[in-house]
Amino acid sequence: MYAITIPEPGGPEALVWTEVPDPVPGEGEVLVEVVSSAVNRADLLQRQGFYSPPPGSSPYPGLECAGRIVEIGSGVSGWSVGDEVCALLVGGGYAEKVAVPAGQLLPVPKGVDLATAAALPEVTCTVWSNVFMIAHLRPTEVFLVHGGSSGIGTMAIQLAKAVGATVAVTAGTQEKLDFCASLGADILINYREQDFVEEIKAATDGAGADVILDNMGAKYLNRNVDALAVNGRLAIIGMQGGVKGELNIGTLLGKRGAITATTLRARPLAEKTAVVAAVREHVWPLVEAGHVRPIVDRALPMDDAAQGHRVLEESGHIGKVLLTRS
Amino acid sequence: MYAITIPEPGGPEALVWTEVPDPVPGEGEVLVEVVSSAVNRADLLQRQGFYSPPPGSSPYPGLECAGRIVEIGSGVSGWSVGDEVCALLVGGGYAEKVAVPAGQLLPVPKGVDLATAAALPEVTCTVWSNVFMIAHLRPTEVFLVHGGSSGIGTMAIQLAKAVGATVAVTAGTQEKLDFCASLGADILINYREQDFVEEIKAATDGAGADVILDNMGAKYLNRNVDALAVNGRLAIIGMQGGVKGELNIGTLLGKRGAITATTLRARPLAEKTAVVAAVREHVWPLVEAGHVRPIVDRALPMDDAAQGHRVLEESGHIGKVLLTRS
Repeated sequence: MYAITIPEPGGPEALVWTEVPDPVPGEGEVLVEVVSSAVNRADLLQRQGFYSPPPGSSPYPGLECAGRIVEIGSGVSGWSVGDEVCALLVGGGYAEKVAVPAGQLLPVPKGVDLATAAALPEVTCTVWSNVFMIAHLRPTEVFLVHGGSSGIGTMAIQLAKAVGATVAVTAGTQEKLDFCASLGADILINYREQDFVEEIKAATDGAGADVILDNMGAKYLNRNVDALAVNGRLAIIGMQGGVKGELNIGTLLGKRGAITATTLRARPLAEKTAVVAAVREHVWPLVEAGHVRPIVDRALPMDDAAQGHRVLEESGHIGKVLLTRS
Repeated sequence: MYAITIPEPGGPEALVWTEVPDPVPGEGEVLVEVVSSAVNRADLLQRQGFYSPPPGSSPYPGLECAGRIVEIGSGVSGWSVGDEVCALLVGGGYAEKVAVPAGQLLPVPKGVDLATAAALPEVTCTVWSNVFMIAHLRPTEVFLVHGGSSGIGTMAIQLAKAVGATVAVTAGTQEKLDFCASLGADILINYREQDFVEEIKAATDGAGADVILDNMGAKYLNRNVDALAVNGRLAIIGMQGGVKGELNIGTLLGKRGAITATTLRARPLAEKTAVVAAVREHVWPLVEAGHVRPIVDRALPMDDAAQGHRVLEESGHIGKVLLTRS
């Protein structure tokens, strides 16, 4: 088969569509013929050599895919050859085929076409696990998501609105904020022109956000804590603004706040399986009812994954960037 | 009545036993004639002028007491004049009488004498709420408590052992560590001579602590994160080592860790009532069965509260310092 390989870490041009050996499904796995994958920020880090795949996993990038099952490994039940699926991956989505643990498979939701389903696994699993399973966002609470127009952001807005929360977003352009509003976001903050701490407080009678989903890490750490409400929870899922930041423990203590930091990729299979099962139970019905939909900025040919990486690096996109096989 | 007042913030001598007006129990409160109170670190801060009582609460120090109910306010059921109780207080324990919301009352556990019961409310409520209600310590997990010989520490060791956890402690002398061992602590770390991160890793095959109860704040922040296991939870309840510390978010993210910071005093009545009810349900049976006991360093006359504060400042004590009425 062909896959995107990274002979040498570097810029987008480091991604090379090359012939490689076919993957073989192991115990508890299925082999999926990939129709589409999608670009995640972690793929950019992996391309640059900063985010190695966990031992034993595919060396090719791609943390999600959609496609058809073409082979069933031993010990797998509930899935058949020919099933249309999408999947959370540890890697290997930028390829013609990928071996997937059965616990990371999801059916393609009714009403979503097969190629578009690759836009769902990472964002639904990341948002559901962090915002609901870890931070326990409740109806009537205030939820702030940074980068509201990103793949994660567009899904987070929709899921938080679906459960009855008030949703605040930050984004860098009016066009992006308008799109967030079209998804239901209630409080729109242009981080280039406004201070998000002041804005969230002004919009909540000084109370702040009950849950914050953050991809910036160090750069926003203390401001996120400042923006938290009493009993607020800050869920960090990325470090685009740096790794080491100052934390004012006194402020956190005064709010009885919590900070969590997680990534999905490194979680063991049992935890991923639990997240995927929860997403299938709680999110898939919302997708099938039309309350939540995949937001796709564009689809690019998989062999030109480099262009997909450039789009994410330029940050002009809204929603997910798909990579489809021609 | 008489109470310890703080005419001017300062050293231990700032505490003055003075005649003051009797408190009057409000709606939902009872009046307790105090037999004993106990010294908490927060009292030292209050004496120095750094930790003002919340608005509407007693201006006198004292976050817990034991005594007898002498008057019942309106809207209180389940308690009678003459009942022997101990109580979690927002303040006012260093006094002959104190008004207490009924939800913060606990019966004196069988087998504990009335004066000694004042050693229980703060430590049981703080440990139970942080280690069990927030950090969800589970049997077979590894629990690290800093300051294992303090009032909090000695209760934390006993409760964690009672639920089946492995317990690690830090303390500054061999005598204190020996005492922690006598309460069941499994891993003893002299923080003056050993690096607690290295020691906890060495004792857990490199895994680290699943839950850490920390009173040091900034000084230990990054080392606590280093000492956490995957999925570990750091519960900060004090800032004896400073307010602002550097946090390595990358390390926290790699462990999918959580940091919480809380104080009991500032929590609203409804939350305190829930904590007290949980302590009565889960901790009191352990005390009455003899699995967990109050650890008292010494009892001093309440009108010499200054001496109690000196004892805590010198940190030579093991367990709680009581203040009793003569």
